[in-house]
Amino acid sequence: MPPKRLSILGVGLLGGSLALAAKKFIKSCEIFGYAHRPETLEAARNAGMLDQGFDRPEPAVDGADLVVLCTPVSQLSPLLQRISGSLANGAIVTDVGSTKRSVVAAGESLLQGDRYFVGSHPMAGSEKRGLHFASADLFQGATCILTPTERTHAPALQKIEEFWRVLGMKTTRLSPPEHDQLLADISHLPHAVAAALVAMQSDRALSLSGKGFQDLTRIAAGDGGLWRDILLDNRDSVRQSIHGLRKELQQLENMLENTSSDELRQWLDRAAGRRRSMADRQGNG
Amino acid sequence: MPPKRLSILGVGLLGGSLALAAKKFIKSCEIFGYAHRPETLEAARNAGMLDQGFDRPEPAVDGADLVVLCTPVSQLSPLLQRISGSLANGAIVTDVGSTKRSVVAAGESLLQGDRYFVGSHPMAGSEKRGLHFASADLFQGATCILTPTERTHAPALQKIEEFWRVLGMKTTRLSPPEHDQLLADISHLPHAVAAALVAMQSDRALSLSGKGFQDLTRIAAGDGGLWRDILLDNRDSVRQSIHGLRKELQQLENMLENTSSDELRQWLDRAAGRRRSMADRQGNG
Repeated sequence: MPPKRLSILGVGLLGGSLALAAKKFIKSCEIFGYAHRPETLEAARNAGMLDQGFDRPEPAVDGADLVVLCTPVSQLSPLLQRISGSLANGAIVTDVGSTKRSVVAAGESLLQGDRYFVGSHPMAGSEKRGLHFASADLFQGATCILTPTERTHAPALQKIEEFWRVLGMKTTRLSPPEHDQLLADISHLPHAVAAALVAMQSDRALSLSGKGFQDLTRIAAGDGGLWRDILLDNRDSVRQSIHGLRKELQQLENMLENTSSDELRQWLDRAAGRRRSMADRQGNG
Repeated sequence: MPPKRLSILGVGLLGGSLALAAKKFIKSCEIFGYAHRPETLEAARNAGMLDQGFDRPEPAVDGADLVVLCTPVSQLSPLLQRISGSLANGAIVTDVGSTKRSVVAAGESLLQGDRYFVGSHPMAGSEKRGLHFASADLFQGATCILTPTERTHAPALQKIEEFWRVLGMKTTRLSPPEHDQLLADISHLPHAVAAALVAMQSDRALSLSGKGFQDLTRIAAGDGGLWRDILLDNRDSVRQSIHGLRKELQQLENMLENTSSDELRQWLDRAAGRRRSMADRQGNG
């Protein structure tokens, strides 16, 4: 059963896209939204994204059977605290945050009685930010990771999985710690490394950079505040990932120092092969 | 004065594109080419890229006023050795290699009398390899770094600069050591880091990677043999670059360990700002 009243808290790139996707793919679903800034609320209303918009989260969850938290990571737990007393019986709450341990712990401790929290991480988005870039098709073909625990209500989990699938996503499941380490490896560390590679360049070098460097560092243009929150919230896993990268760099240094030609070739070929099969599998470059 | 007889030694992506570009942008220029493999030579002939094709380099430089070495980096010095006795009086030799200290040293020691070497690095290309991807417009709008030394013949340098400009490139000058350190920072280390970031992932993580990771690691799909040669030839500068990256990663680790929220935000914002202004300047993302 798709939601009858969907409440979207935070109407930026993800929240706005979620509203548009729900309008497009779910029949007769009423959409309530909350935005902190009046201009965002106004823009969302003008774009016809919301049936009702609010500048406080409490009335925006009134009577909603599904609530999706779409604020930056650092605001998820405070927001859960604010709405926990206003949720309808049977309401299911999820989120779209890039880290999961902290929000799942907060959700499971704050929601009481017949109200359920399920962590979601729809892996869609870009280095762009804001309602202006929202699109009903942002989620199409991308993967949403659900992060159930042993305390997760099974019917709520199924309902959330069905919700993301209706919007065009594939779904998979990981525990919150597994999710956070995997994301630290595949997303949070790479972001930090892209920033580090930009940071270490001279202006002259940057002015001479080519397409390869531009592709490699594109994600470093993302919002500093959002990424700061993600890196800090997930700092144990990110430090573990840095450790993994250091080991690879040490291996590279050893191969260079010893002029280990065959070994270096194997290391590069293996990475090239994995990168190529990744591109093939996902159908884009 | 553009060349009257251009000799292209090595007809892969860069050599093939050079032949096509010379046909397109230089009037009445005769093009001689050398390829080691018969099938490459055949393909270049069939594509109408070469006026004459040879399976040995010596006859391919006969009477040429401009010779461009387009082989992988590890083969540049041996190739210079082979052709040095066959060059015409007044011939100018350049190359397209991604490292410059070794080839410039070889060129300056091997070419005698009225024959001149000038190092070039046209910063064009892609992770693709081979004649099949050659294009007359590969060089358009890209930058070519010339690497003169105090021994460089000034008229030869000017002629080479003019040559690349006629093909649509901007030109700039750096000394060979400056070039090699700059390229280690902006290209060779980034390539190695992309490979390291692929190498450290689990299969599960790779299967869940998103567009950001794909962009970031695209260059890691490049040919392992070519990159092995580049990294080894430039290993002193690459090790210096690894040291620079380590310092940035250490700073990141410290900020995470101390939860230095403001400092981390500044570090990320500064990288984001530099990345964005880079994109703006170069007119692509």
